Amino acid sequence: MTYCIGYWLEKGLVMASDSRTNAGVDYISSYSKMYVFQPASDRLFVLLAAGNLATTQAVVSWIRRDLDRPAEDSPSGAGDLRSCDYLFEAAAYIGRVSVAVQEENGAALQQAGASAGASFLLGGQIAGESHGLYLVYPQGNAIMATRETPYLQIGETKYGKPPLDNVGHTNLSLEDAARLCLISEVLTQRSNLTVGPPFELAIVPADALTVAHRLTFAADAPELTAMVETWSDAQREALHRLPSFPWEQASPT
Amino acid sequence: MTYCIGYWLEKGLVMASDSRTNAGVDYISSYSKMYVFQPASDRLFVLLAAGNLATTQAVVSWIRRDLDRPAEDSPSGAGDLRSCDYLFEAAAYIGRVSVAVQEENGAALQQAGASAGASFLLGGQIAGESHGLYLVYPQGNAIMATRETPYLQIGETKYGKPPLDNVGHTNLSLEDAARLCLISEVLTQRSNLTVGPPFELAIVPADALTVAHRLTFAADAPELTAMVETWSDAQREALHRLPSFPWEQASPT
Repeated sequence: MTYCIGYWLEKGLVMASDSRTNAGVDYISSYSKMYVFQPASDRLFVLLAAGNLATTQAVVSWIRRDLDRPAEDSPSGAGDLRSCDYLFEAAAYIGRVSVAVQEENGAALQQAGASAGASFLLGGQIAGESHGLYLVYPQGNAIMATRETPYLQIGETKYGKPPLDNVGHTNLSLEDAARLCLISEVLTQRSNLTVGPPFELAIVPADALTVAHRLTFAADAPELTAMVETWSDAQREALHRLPSFPWEQASPT
Repeated sequence: MTYCIGYWLEKGLVMASDSRTNAGVDYISSYSKMYVFQPASDRLFVLLAAGNLATTQAVVSWIRRDLDRPAEDSPSGAGDLRSCDYLFEAAAYIGRVSVAVQEENGAALQQAGASAGASFLLGGQIAGESHGLYLVYPQGNAIMATRETPYLQIGETKYGKPPLDNVGHTNLSLEDAARLCLISEVLTQRSNLTVGPPFELAIVPADALTVAHRLTFAADAPELTAMVETWSDAQREALHRLPSFPWEQASPT
């Protein structure tokens, strides 16, 4: 499994990912799931990947190959990240490449009881357009983040959703949103073995067309320990501030 | 879906459940999932149910029927809650009844692409034994809660797990554990449509052989609103107490 978050904010984008990959419980390994593409100075893309590792690696390789060749000679036949004028076209391109990759081995994998499926979060900006964020489904279609639903998740999404729902909004600073995403990652890791460090973070300010900060936090990073302690302390304090039951109020403490 | 929690504490048990039942998105309704059985003064059982509603209702009806008839004439052939000397025997009995109920319609349901499966949490005590808590799987086998893993969940378990993992331990007061379970329920409800109020809570002190407090919280219960506000406020405060990134420290605030 995997847990990736993309967060759309007024001030830009935050992209966060874990690095655990597992095929069963016998083969657990670390792979970065964050890829940055800047094929020209007028465009920046940050791609996060979840699902079948062979699929996601091949999709990234195909994207790079498409960028290596002249645009009119697209090897994947799907276009490339240079030729799109809108972010939604880039998301559709990722979807086409993903579907094409899955078709290569999908049937054999299905016979073996496995899935070639993969999901992607594509955040970025093309000059002249606002920054945006898309979730590309295994079937190749995509939805975008909006002000009403500013964050999108792929992988093991449930454990870390409540803090995003409770505290998140689009006017957070990029740094606060980045901390919120990290907390969401770390909480998920504590409750589920298939999500694990190092955690990666990319902070992309609106209209900058560059990744302002890219950070990696290892398992023993003191920042992560401090975060979990602060968060757990706050929960313990909150537990004691919750309303008492009627019978507790009746008896002197 | 459903979300039920059983929490084993040194001082007793807390059992919590939601009340939402849905068959697709067109048929959403409310059913209590908490059943209390006290077939004799020396024993108390609190049962929480998740899964196929027809199965869980039939299991409870069978349990009641087994208690109505003379013990030697067990209609289900599986025993009853009077005749067990240990809580693990009661859990095994629930498992046998559940499997027998599932066998009645399981094949037809499977053909229709549905599942007859159901899971149960059984908390309680039989005089002479300590209080205990079991999770009964759809296959009829069961695991118990221990000091290392004091809480068990069934249904939509992921959203509400982090607070239990971060703050929970077996020396909490029954009231604090009850508040923690309620928070876990309410957070789940906020992030997932298939879990909903009213929420039910049973507090069972060790060796009391009675439910000391049984509470129901409707959707508009002011306690729930106050809880969510307190919890979200604490998270917002915690977010601002998390460690800063290096570039934030460098610039004057």
